[in-house]
Amino acid sequence: MASNLGVVELTIALESVFDVRKDKIVWDVGHQCYVHKILTGRRKELVSLRKFNGLSGFPNTNESVADAFNTGHSSTSLSAAMGLAKARDLKNKNYNVIAVIGDGALTGGMALEALNHIGSNKTKMIIILNDNNMSISVNNGGINKLLTNIRSKRKYIRTNLYSKKVISNIPIVGTPITKVISKGKAAVKQVFVPGMYFEEIGIKYLGPIDGHNIKKLEDIFKDVLDYDGPVLIHVLTKKGKGYKYAEENPTRFHGIGSFDIETGEALKKGKDYSFVFGKKLVSMAKRNKRIVAITAAMKDGVGLSEFADLYPDRFFDVGIAEQHALTFAAGLAKEGMIPFVSIYSSFYQRGYDQVIHDICLSNLHVIMCVDRAGLVGADGKTHQGLYDMAFFKIIPNITIMAPSDFLELEMMLDFAVTLNSPLVIRYPRGGEEGSFSHKDIRLGLGEVIRKGINVSIISIGKALFQAMEVADILSKSDIDAEVINARFLKPLDNKLLINSIKKTGNVIVIEDGSIMGGLSSSVKELIIDNKLMEINIKCYGYPDMFIEHGSSEELKKKYKLDNLRIVRDVKKMIKNK
Amino acid sequence: MASNLGVVELTIALESVFDVRKDKIVWDVGHQCYVHKILTGRRKELVSLRKFNGLSGFPNTNESVADAFNTGHSSTSLSAAMGLAKARDLKNKNYNVIAVIGDGALTGGMALEALNHIGSNKTKMIIILNDNNMSISVNNGGINKLLTNIRSKRKYIRTNLYSKKVISNIPIVGTPITKVISKGKAAVKQVFVPGMYFEEIGIKYLGPIDGHNIKKLEDIFKDVLDYDGPVLIHVLTKKGKGYKYAEENPTRFHGIGSFDIETGEALKKGKDYSFVFGKKLVSMAKRNKRIVAITAAMKDGVGLSEFADLYPDRFFDVGIAEQHALTFAAGLAKEGMIPFVSIYSSFYQRGYDQVIHDICLSNLHVIMCVDRAGLVGADGKTHQGLYDMAFFKIIPNITIMAPSDFLELEMMLDFAVTLNSPLVIRYPRGGEEGSFSHKDIRLGLGEVIRKGINVSIISIGKALFQAMEVADILSKSDIDAEVINARFLKPLDNKLLINSIKKTGNVIVIEDGSIMGGLSSSVKELIIDNKLMEINIKCYGYPDMFIEHGSSEELKKKYKLDNLRIVRDVKKMIKNK
Repeated sequence: MASNLGVVELTIALESVFDVRKDKIVWDVGHQCYVHKILTGRRKELVSLRKFNGLSGFPNTNESVADAFNTGHSSTSLSAAMGLAKARDLKNKNYNVIAVIGDGALTGGMALEALNHIGSNKTKMIIILNDNNMSISVNNGGINKLLTNIRSKRKYIRTNLYSKKVISNIPIVGTPITKVISKGKAAVKQVFVPGMYFEEIGIKYLGPIDGHNIKKLEDIFKDVLDYDGPVLIHVLTKKGKGYKYAEENPTRFHGIGSFDIETGEALKKGKDYSFVFGKKLVSMAKRNKRIVAITAAMKDGVGLSEFADLYPDRFFDVGIAEQHALTFAAGLAKEGMIPFVSIYSSFYQRGYDQVIHDICLSNLHVIMCVDRAGLVGADGKTHQGLYDMAFFKIIPNITIMAPSDFLELEMMLDFAVTLNSPLVIRYPRGGEEGSFSHKDIRLGLGEVIRKGINVSIISIGKALFQAMEVADILSKSDIDAEVINARFLKPLDNKLLINSIKKTGNVIVIEDGSIMGGLSSSVKELIIDNKLMEINIKCYGYPDMFIEHGSSEELKKKYKLDNLRIVRDVKKMIKNK
Repeated sequence: MASNLGVVELTIALESVFDVRKDKIVWDVGHQCYVHKILTGRRKELVSLRKFNGLSGFPNTNESVADAFNTGHSSTSLSAAMGLAKARDLKNKNYNVIAVIGDGALTGGMALEALNHIGSNKTKMIIILNDNNMSISVNNGGINKLLTNIRSKRKYIRTNLYSKKVISNIPIVGTPITKVISKGKAAVKQVFVPGMYFEEIGIKYLGPIDGHNIKKLEDIFKDVLDYDGPVLIHVLTKKGKGYKYAEENPTRFHGIGSFDIETGEALKKGKDYSFVFGKKLVSMAKRNKRIVAITAAMKDGVGLSEFADLYPDRFFDVGIAEQHALTFAAGLAKEGMIPFVSIYSSFYQRGYDQVIHDICLSNLHVIMCVDRAGLVGADGKTHQGLYDMAFFKIIPNITIMAPSDFLELEMMLDFAVTLNSPLVIRYPRGGEEGSFSHKDIRLGLGEVIRKGINVSIISIGKALFQAMEVADILSKSDIDAEVINARFLKPLDNKLLINSIKKTGNVIVIEDGSIMGGLSSSVKELIIDNKLMEINIKCYGYPDMFIEHGSSEELKKKYKLDNLRIVRDVKKMIKNK
């Protein structure tokens, strides 16, 4: 919410100067696109925002032609916009391309890669740097420092930096640097011109300007229309602008749940997995000085705020920089520290090579905590954590676990410290749905939660709760289900599973992930590899497509993963046997 | 080779000042570590370099304590070294950490992420920027421009920039910027000091200095030992130094095969898949103006040099920046261009999120050519292309193909233009082993290459040749094998496979990839999903571990994937039936 309040004037100015039916505005991340949605014909539908069958919380090319490109993850806008701009040039078309990127997103490696290419290619495009001095968490990085310097320099510039006259006079520092240096005066002037870094890499820099002054914004947009190259407009905005509580605490209002508008207080939220993770890690770190925690601009989201406060020397928020976070962890592990990295499931996709090449190839003891694994609800397609089981499973040397309740998460975190090799622990958004009594954790061993003889229900992590619900419903029809908590996706407890499968002859797999490549695939391969003939098996995971936003119940029903469906299938399976 | 010749003096100076048994030197990429290997007790073993059971072509922590961290992919050294340095500080140890990174590697997003964190964290470490103005391909990026400016400024500095006096006098531009600006003189001076960008983000900059002057290098290394923060030493080197032909043509000598030392001429090399890809794309681009080609600092390696020469406007070498390359392609595709991205298999791991989130989620028509797929030979563990089938397969909307010979690659490239959705074409390093007569390509259809009744041998891509060899050997024992070229890993030709499997009852899968998650997994799931009971199946792919360097024959034998083994297994399978 806060990021939308910050760009009200910016969006109005943008859309009064540019034609969204023709020009292409790419919103980085895209969570700040609500104003844009309102202005482009979706005001009435806004009540359905982030709800099942409703508007997406991000730009969505299927919703409107005004959404030029699908975004959701950070730092993609510059690359995408450059593609749109080059396509225009190659087709001899004539539209404008604008990327709107926050200062936080600018720390992401891919944005820096793109700046580099845009600068050297001289692609005509407009980059709006929406600088609110605030990425999702506190932004401490060097680039932020660079921007802070630019902001502070502003005080020394008596006149309003931006004016038509100034535009044409700004020395292009990149190209004719030798000339500039040969003239003493020009050199001094250059120091006073902010944005030298951008100019050096070949991007014209303008700003900083007040991002809440519509008139000034419109003027500058009109003025750069004819500039034949890349130009960056540095805009200063206030996150949460206009709503007192959000201005005072923009991080909390970044992606807030329901709250009281009068007081700004969040409606009470239950304990969630992230909270349990953070609490447990704090207590572990007290006893074990080798434990360090790393995240990438999601300190609050992953539950590491208390850890950061108590152990500032052992806490690292690297900014939006998942690649660096993981290889940095590898370096720490190489010298005997025990790094717990906590990142959302879909953002591990950003650090996939680092997991393979830097952590697993060297068999380093890095614990990768995968928060927001499985269905994420309102965030939708871009943020679903449905692929991590599949993409981690194929990496050599890796161990993969998933807890079914808070207690098991704590047990797994304790276990993680004892295993001297790469380890993944995946857990969902939100709280536990139930709790179970667990055996001690031993590498590669699952546990039988409910003994039975008619059907084996194999699950992992969060799905155990549904497995037990299904078993309870089946018991009313005198079907006695055995429920297995696999605990480890890799190594899988082959012996336990085979024994149960041989006993019951009927297998159900339930998982909170894609049906491709996760637990379902592993169980099927187990059956084939062990020549377990005449086995009935049916697997329940999300189909091989991008899954939209919606509640767990809505989506389970839509994709035929709900209890009623499973119970019906099991009854049919047993009857037909 | 050329990169090693460029760092002879640098390595000597480094290892005379630092103690490799205690201090940690992290070589970025690591292909320049041969001199280091010679100096650290591996001179005699150097003849075994990159050979089976011999020395690795990259640093290898299992080979020597002097290899502080495993590298292979670009741009990882800063993150890893920062990890080693923070671990030292947290443990109150006292070793030095040095990262040696090339100017090309500095365009990789993760290196920039790391710089950002190092600068803000003020971690004590030494970064040696080995600037030879040359990444693997030509380096045109903005960062290169920034470095070029620094290099050119050097002319204007009359005195040798580096001296003890200068170190202490260099204004730290980052922190006290306001002071600097308030003093006219200091401001002027600042412009004359190169490396302002690094200083701005919080990293002390020294240089540039002559990277072939051992004495000067040793002096500067000794001088920075006590500096309590991050320092970057900008070293200018000449790639290929000392060998005329390599100096003149460093790109060709970057990773060259056998060549004549007297003339510098490469020994004749056969046509390979990369060459066929490049030739074909050139002819397609002539007819189809929408075709563009993108690579990430591997223009020559992937066969795109001719394309680049003929269609400079439609060719983009983005530097070492796979993430940007893929999302840039997505932007181009969104506006109707047809981008062919060509990157080595193991480097797609760097752009995994971009494939999922920017290309496939929007179902964009980007053709991802996966060069060096499968076993790569001498490059070894870090570069094996064994995982791409598995990690691509789980992404929704994607189509995956692999050609079995040059002709089929050309057919697949033609087909790729007609399919309006994301497409992967994977092909191996090197040339075709045989050629086959093929049917026209249709989405999701495989082809029977040899009809038979006793066993179905299912293969894809390069593995078809081995499948046919096995069938030939089996025929001598009166076993009549049916050989199937799957062509599409996704969507798999279920009908064709099921019919063959039902007919023969025995299935062999051969693939040039990991046994986990690729064709073998797909066929097993197909069998289960279709309740094909009483089927014998045995799958041949590389085991779930990191596979070392060696020739295809050596590694197939080691991992029991050779023809003799497969033939023996098939005979046993049929006999036991």
